[in-house]
Amino acid sequence: MPASKYPVKINVDLGEGYGNFKCGPDDELIPLIDHANVACGFHAGDPLIMQQTVRECKKHKIAVGAHPGLPDIQGFGRREIKMSPEELTAMTRYQVGALKAFLDAEGMPLHHVKPHGVLYGMMYRDREVCRAVYEGVPKGTTVFGLAGTFHEEVARELGLPFVAELYGDVKYSKDGTLVIDRKKKPWAPEEAQAHIKSQVENGSVTAVTGEDVQLPIGDHQVSLCCHSDSPGAVEIVTAARQIVDQFNKKHFS
Amino acid sequence: MPASKYPVKINVDLGEGYGNFKCGPDDELIPLIDHANVACGFHAGDPLIMQQTVRECKKHKIAVGAHPGLPDIQGFGRREIKMSPEELTAMTRYQVGALKAFLDAEGMPLHHVKPHGVLYGMMYRDREVCRAVYEGVPKGTTVFGLAGTFHEEVARELGLPFVAELYGDVKYSKDGTLVIDRKKKPWAPEEAQAHIKSQVENGSVTAVTGEDVQLPIGDHQVSLCCHSDSPGAVEIVTAARQIVDQFNKKHFS
Amino acid sequence: MPASKYPVKINVDLGEGYGNFKCGPDDELIPLIDHANVACGFHAGDPLIMQQTVRECKKHKIAVGAHPGLPDIQGFGRREIKMSPEELTAMTRYQVGALKAFLDAEGMPLHHVKPHGVLYGMMYRDREVCRAVYEGVPKGTTVFGLAGTFHEEVARELGLPFVAELYGDVKYSKDGTLVIDRKKKPWAPEEAQAHIKSQVENGSVTAVTGEDVQLPIGDHQVSLCCHSDSPGAVEIVTAARQIVDQFNKKHFS
Amino acid sequence: MPASKYPVKINVDLGEGYGNFKCGPDDELIPLIDHANVACGFHAGDPLIMQQTVRECKKHKIAVGAHPGLPDIQGFGRREIKMSPEELTAMTRYQVGALKAFLDAEGMPLHHVKPHGVLYGMMYRDREVCRAVYEGVPKGTTVFGLAGTFHEEVARELGLPFVAELYGDVKYSKDGTLVIDRKKKPWAPEEAQAHIKSQVENGSVTAVTGEDVQLPIGDHQVSLCCHSDSPGAVEIVTAARQIVDQFNKKHFS
Repeated sequence: MPASKYPVKINVDLGEGYGNFKCGPDDELIPLIDHANVACGFHAGDPLIMQQTVRECKKHKIAVGAHPGLPDIQGFGRREIKMSPEELTAMTRYQVGALKAFLDAEGMPLHHVKPHGVLYGMMYRDREVCRAVYEGVPKGTTVFGLAGTFHEEVARELGLPFVAELYGDVKYSKDGTLVIDRKKKPWAPEEAQAHIKSQVENGSVTAVTGEDVQLPIGDHQVSLCCHSDSPGAVEIVTAARQIVDQFNKKHFS
Repeated sequence: MPASKYPVKINVDLGEGYGNFKCGPDDELIPLIDHANVACGFHAGDPLIMQQTVRECKKHKIAVGAHPGLPDIQGFGRREIKMSPEELTAMTRYQVGALKAFLDAEGMPLHHVKPHGVLYGMMYRDREVCRAVYEGVPKGTTVFGLAGTFHEEVARELGLPFVAELYGDVKYSKDGTLVIDRKKKPWAPEEAQAHIKSQVENGSVTAVTGEDVQLPIGDHQVSLCCHSDSPGAVEIVTAARQIVDQFNKKHFS
Repeated sequence: MPASKYPVKINVDLGEGYGNFKCGPDDELIPLIDHANVACGFHAGDPLIMQQTVRECKKHKIAVGAHPGLPDIQGFGRREIKMSPEELTAMTRYQVGALKAFLDAEGMPLHHVKPHGVLYGMMYRDREVCRAVYEGVPKGTTVFGLAGTFHEEVARELGLPFVAELYGDVKYSKDGTLVIDRKKKPWAPEEAQAHIKSQVENGSVTAVTGEDVQLPIGDHQVSLCCHSDSPGAVEIVTAARQIVDQFNKKHFS
Repeated sequence: MPASKYPVKINVDLGEGYGNFKCGPDDELIPLIDHANVACGFHAGDPLIMQQTVRECKKHKIAVGAHPGLPDIQGFGRREIKMSPEELTAMTRYQVGALKAFLDAEGMPLHHVKPHGVLYGMMYRDREVCRAVYEGVPKGTTVFGLAGTFHEEVARELGLPFVAELYGDVKYSKDGTLVIDRKKKPWAPEEAQAHIKSQVENGSVTAVTGEDVQLPIGDHQVSLCCHSDSPGAVEIVTAARQIVDQFNKKHFS
């Protein structure tokens, strides 16, 4: 029995530059992925970049979701900020709405919402934060998150469809949550491949402390996340594409 | 024959605080007006303020429009910034979309779009700027602007319904355009009343240089703009409400 | 024996507007105080406001200190942000240096450094944060803080002269630390007066939970802090001035 | 007779990243240059980057100047913003002061001030803007600018020592001013070399419209500017170093 009941997809955060500052090799990554999480201007991205990224995704028929983050471009959304639940809801609503405007202009639907960086982590650690953010997601919109955490639990509570994420280029703690660094460290190619393979094929991963962790993806749709700002992003995503395609071919064709 | 073919309405810019900073007496103004132009976070406003302002407008059944501005909170959108047409379109789209998310959440329609401050002025002086901003307005959405300028001309060109604005608390040049200060100066009450009366009743105004200027409102719907950050805003809007109500009663009831 | 070994002074945070947004009645407060803590553009203030505030203080011969805060104008420096020690040091250095430029231009010395809002609170709760911020203070510069906390301890460690603060318009916990709200609530005048009197005259205060708390000001110089954005700030500072003057006259003239 | 009466130096803008966003290959450029213009956080740079850049320059014994820009990180200081003279002065003072704090902490002097991007251009086109910015420069501090423009004239007027700049990777108009793009275009190596050689050796340059332009460097010290964000920056600066070293050796050793 495959680890996932559905074909595995790949998502990447895109449009994470700012003004003249470039972030990842978006143009090279877009052809390799299924789902784009487009930054909404709070932790990265700006209106022009959002517009261009959405158009680029349209050309390649990539499904586009919103990637809201904490209001902190300098910290790239990776510095924890204590905000009230009302602020979190409003901030999410604002960012998703902004992205939706670019999708509307291109006649594209909003495919999903996936919060960024430390906000994502705050949400699986703190039920109230998770609830406040998801309150800002338009009704019925799919959210991407970590299965077995508040992400999944609160999504169910609010009736938001849930896609379970795997992480191709982020390490895990033994409790199945992520180890986030403000700046990414490079992966050895074979290390990244093993990390991806074990998740895609067995639904399990080796934690930074050595334990084998079973990921509770259950019956959910699954999308494997890779980051455009990881050193060697194109190589990692290329490898991920291969592993995922093999897995999908074996089990779903 | 009345100066306006339709009952005159009143619009005010609202939600122009930022974080802890308050701008105008929004709560006192909302019951006095017909149309709110809600700041979208670029020249003023933030997600929480937008959310609260939209809810307040809903309670009072005020029609809400977006009030996009240049990205410059420090300058309150009153310092000219040279942006490319693409940037102007994207920036407008972003801000209108953000506001729309709060309206969507409250089940309210987007009533109109009215650009803020120096952007509004740049648009009636520069056709390309006007066109770029209006390209970012969702198709078919009403825009508020100055009749007889590029505002009207480009709106027609793009098929955007147009409402002609009068200005209750801003002085005019003899060419019918506005004299904008970065910080507002106080009006004597009788001066403000005369300024409003002449526009509402006769469709004309005395320019800062003394000429009597006929405002080319033509067959358009008309909305009189007052500012929440004008010194004495509540008094001015109260007077405007009275003048407008009398005019409307006389001609349209 | 008086609670303080030296005449008590009064300090107020000034220049906490931003662009067109005004914060407190600075002009009315300046003649009433001894020490100004001037915001440095990160939680409030901007270059123009800093320049004007410094000049106003010079006219009234007020001693000026820097008031660095977290980089968060929207949250007015009252939302906790997790920053690395290196970032905290650099951010403090930056802000103090910026203020110093305006003092240099007016031929005024930098009198002290007093961190703002939640940063001040993070510092007395977290030794590492306190140390990182004080590392950014120019050598030998006086810091204002809460006696008996890491403020005092780390200042001693780094050889920074220390002034113990009392708080005229902020309530205390029973451990002698402060109860900070993001938006200030109004004080009844007699309540504020009693709060100030007990601190100035007896060096003690009633905590929000009812206990009488002895403030460990010891042999330090003492400065009573009031806030320009407290509702009724002018009344509170006027009362504080009277209480402090009486105390100083009784014990030090 | 050499084009310059003094050995020619090389300056590069450094520290023009922001948070996680990197700009140029600073580490590779620092060993190749004489003068660093360090961004001050308004168009690029942040406190942490400034601190690190200053330390790196200290290690390599590079003279460090401030590189103030318009307050516009999204536009990288390359979008014109209309600011009042008072704002320009205050903004310059703020940024230079902030940088000076990092120099003070390292025991380094402030070597010079060189405004960034479109501000630099606004200054040579508009006497009032130039004067307002230079008013914010600490008395007696050297400024870098374009000889024969308001840069030179206003510096003289205010008694600021002046260094004439040549531009290794920017094209010239026939009036001897610069052609600035918001995003840099790549140079062919031999083209860049010819561009640099002709300026260093003959004090002349070929304008974009084909004319040979004599640069009025007169008796000034000369520093050749290259940009860290130019495509091929390391190659250009390496070539510049060689050309400049040869010139200096020939004429000044």
